[in-house]
Amino acid sequence: MATVRLIEYDEASPEVRAVYDDIRATRQSDFINNFWKALAHSPAQLQRTWSALKAVMAPGALDALTKELIYIAVSVANSCEYCTHSHTASARAKGMSEAQYAELLAVIAMAHQTNGLATAMQVPVDAAFLADA
Amino acid sequence: MATVRLIEYDEASPEVRAVYDDIRATRQSDFINNFWKALAHSPAQLQRTWSALKAVMAPGALDALTKELIYIAVSVANSCEYCTHSHTASARAKGMSEAQYAELLAVIAMAHQTNGLATAMQVPVDAAFLADA
Amino acid sequence: MATVRLIEYDEASPEVRAVYDDIRATRQSDFINNFWKALAHSPAQLQRTWSALKAVMAPGALDALTKELIYIAVSVANSCEYCTHSHTASARAKGMSEAQYAELLAVIAMAHQTNGLATAMQVPVDAAFLADA
Amino acid sequence: MATVRLIEYDEASPEVRAVYDDIRATRQSDFINNFWKALAHSPAQLQRTWSALKAVMAPGALDALTKELIYIAVSVANSCEYCTHSHTASARAKGMSEAQYAELLAVIAMAHQTNGLATAMQVPVDAAFLADA
Amino acid sequence: MATVRLIEYDEASPEVRAVYDDIRATRQSDFINNFWKALAHSPAQLQRTWSALKAVMAPGALDALTKELIYIAVSVANSCEYCTHSHTASARAKGMSEAQYAELLAVIAMAHQTNGLATAMQVPVDAAFLADA
Amino acid sequence: MATVRLIEYDEASPEVRAVYDDIRATRQSDFINNFWKALAHSPAQLQRTWSALKAVMAPGALDALTKELIYIAVSVANSCEYCTHSHTASARAKGMSEAQYAELLAVIAMAHQTNGLATAMQVPVDAAFLADA
Repeated sequence: MATVRLIEYDEASPEVRAVYDDIRATRQSDFINNFWKALAHSPAQLQRTWSALKAVMAPGALDALTKELIYIAVSVANSCEYCTHSHTASARAKGMSEAQYAELLAVIAMAHQTNGLATAMQVPVDAAFLADA
Repeated sequence: MATVRLIEYDEASPEVRAVYDDIRATRQSDFINNFWKALAHSPAQLQRTWSALKAVMAPGALDALTKELIYIAVSVANSCEYCTHSHTASARAKGMSEAQYAELLAVIAMAHQTNGLATAMQVPVDAAFLADA
Repeated sequence: MATVRLIEYDEASPEVRAVYDDIRATRQSDFINNFWKALAHSPAQLQRTWSALKAVMAPGALDALTKELIYIAVSVANSCEYCTHSHTASARAKGMSEAQYAELLAVIAMAHQTNGLATAMQVPVDAAFLADA
Repeated sequence: MATVRLIEYDEASPEVRAVYDDIRATRQSDFINNFWKALAHSPAQLQRTWSALKAVMAPGALDALTKELIYIAVSVANSCEYCTHSHTASARAKGMSEAQYAELLAVIAMAHQTNGLATAMQVPVDAAFLADA
Repeated sequence: MATVRLIEYDEASPEVRAVYDDIRATRQSDFINNFWKALAHSPAQLQRTWSALKAVMAPGALDALTKELIYIAVSVANSCEYCTHSHTASARAKGMSEAQYAELLAVIAMAHQTNGLATAMQVPVDAAFLADA
Repeated sequence: MATVRLIEYDEASPEVRAVYDDIRATRQSDFINNFWKALAHSPAQLQRTWSALKAVMAPGALDALTKELIYIAVSVANSCEYCTHSHTASARAKGMSEAQYAELLAVIAMAHQTNGLATAMQVPVDAAFLADA
């Protein structure tokens, strides 16, 4: 159960409904997921977060599926149960194959492992990695 | 400074040299980065980690650059300074453009933000996200 | 379900009951929340943790509500479901308004976002920030 | 050293300068800290992040100093060295006393400790904490 | 509910069954826990993870119980609910007494607390700690 | 550089000196490490933290070296550079062999890896793990 009540479309204020409508139009689906219904307690935060997400996740120099894979990777490392489930579902909706998912999991596992080792040994950053920036 | 001394090629045991040689051959470069030199205190761990990394990061259902972007995302979320630097360098070496890097950063920022919000509000996972698995 | 059985007042040892009694007196409520019932397996840890919490959370240079907001922020960043729920409830009991909660969430979201960006880009600390300490 | 070169005012594009100018006007100081100089590689991200930060950190239902304390708490829990330093400096600039800082540290320490305990014992959330939302 | 369906022995492929059989033989128990049933979607990942775990957790310079305590400590700090439960159960199965568990919890709590303090104050590493490596 | 000035013995107040004296007596060494010199700005916090640490880290149901290994594991997972260095030094001072250190690193790496996988797949906790508590 959330720390706040979820706000459904029917009881939402006009400004919240405007965001819900844009979510539906953008995704071409009637479904509004719980994250937005919780965020709707603060219409300004809802509007700011949705418009940023819409801009950031649109295909650009990276395609939409690659962006979802990166999103999952962050959400797992931050132990966010909600975001892990919602973005795994999004990635599948955007065409992630089971083979791609298996490789995503393998990279996530590998990165966690070497993150732990590099931090444990406090390995100094190679000068070569700093040269180009 | 690391918690262990870095082991250079010249002083390495034959089994450590064999891994160093394979790193060089695989990457077609003489450069051995500090992570492996630190890990070399445990030849078994060095060998296991390198062979897993080599298998996991090879192109497959996901291409090599996408895998580096995922690796960066995990490393940032885990606050691993070494891994963030080394995999950002690797991603550039594999062709990451500045436009792609900017979008990677935008997705990382977005995910951290919504991870914080979803965890703060303890948003319950929508049944729809659980239906397919 | 916890990794340990929760210890109720009726079955508690005298030293555990003494802590439970002090929790009740301090909070002016009969309610003992699950955290203490789990910790009660180690009476020394229970006593040490409760007395530290009581001292730390008392109003001082910072008021009691501000301390709860800080506590929530840490608990969210550490992905602690229990502590997020319990301290959100405490903050409300201490008078947190919905407007304050909305701003707390906005700051948490903002901080997570810039934490991710600063770590991803490994931004060096400005000399000006180090000058005063 | 950052993964990107820091962009100084003199070499910045007009849209980046516009953000730098607004930072200076808002803070009534010529100082632009490194975070913005790194973010300037992506003018859209710079603009979006600065305008969100400016809106979120302005005094409202919570005062500006309380918001900085919350920001520090998140940054510490996320192990963000840059943000910990920059927001500790900001809090001092906004009047944080040493007594307030000592209490902030005490709450941060307390929260980390009980987060660890609650997660280790997987304490179930009390029904009472869920009742009001 | 997992993001993937759990694969039971009866429906498993021969290579997955071979790993399940080795888990059963190694642990001298018919029980296969859910982690492996989820991982079984990628037989290569299942095989690599199990063989690494089997090698790493075998008694050596550290005994098997000490290794479980370390595993719990990592899992708690990473907020991994599954791993916290599974390795607490493993530690008990390997003889962890309630007194040992209480001390484990006390060290975990202490470490989280001082981690928070050291990171908050950005304490510089003493030269003496770096001298020997 | 720390966010606070380090307080040396010669300039310390009597109550801070009393803690420094106890640290020296307990460790049978004149060395006071930076963590305590930073914490000394708040004598109450210094006293509370030191006395808790002294009690928690004393040998009991777990020996002193095992406790250090657990402390390192937590500190690594929390990305605490200071604590990772200081407790690795402590573990060596208490007799940790290089073989033990290699196995500690291997367990840390393994745990991080499976934490990532279990969280990514949101594996449900087996009923068998919950049965005994």
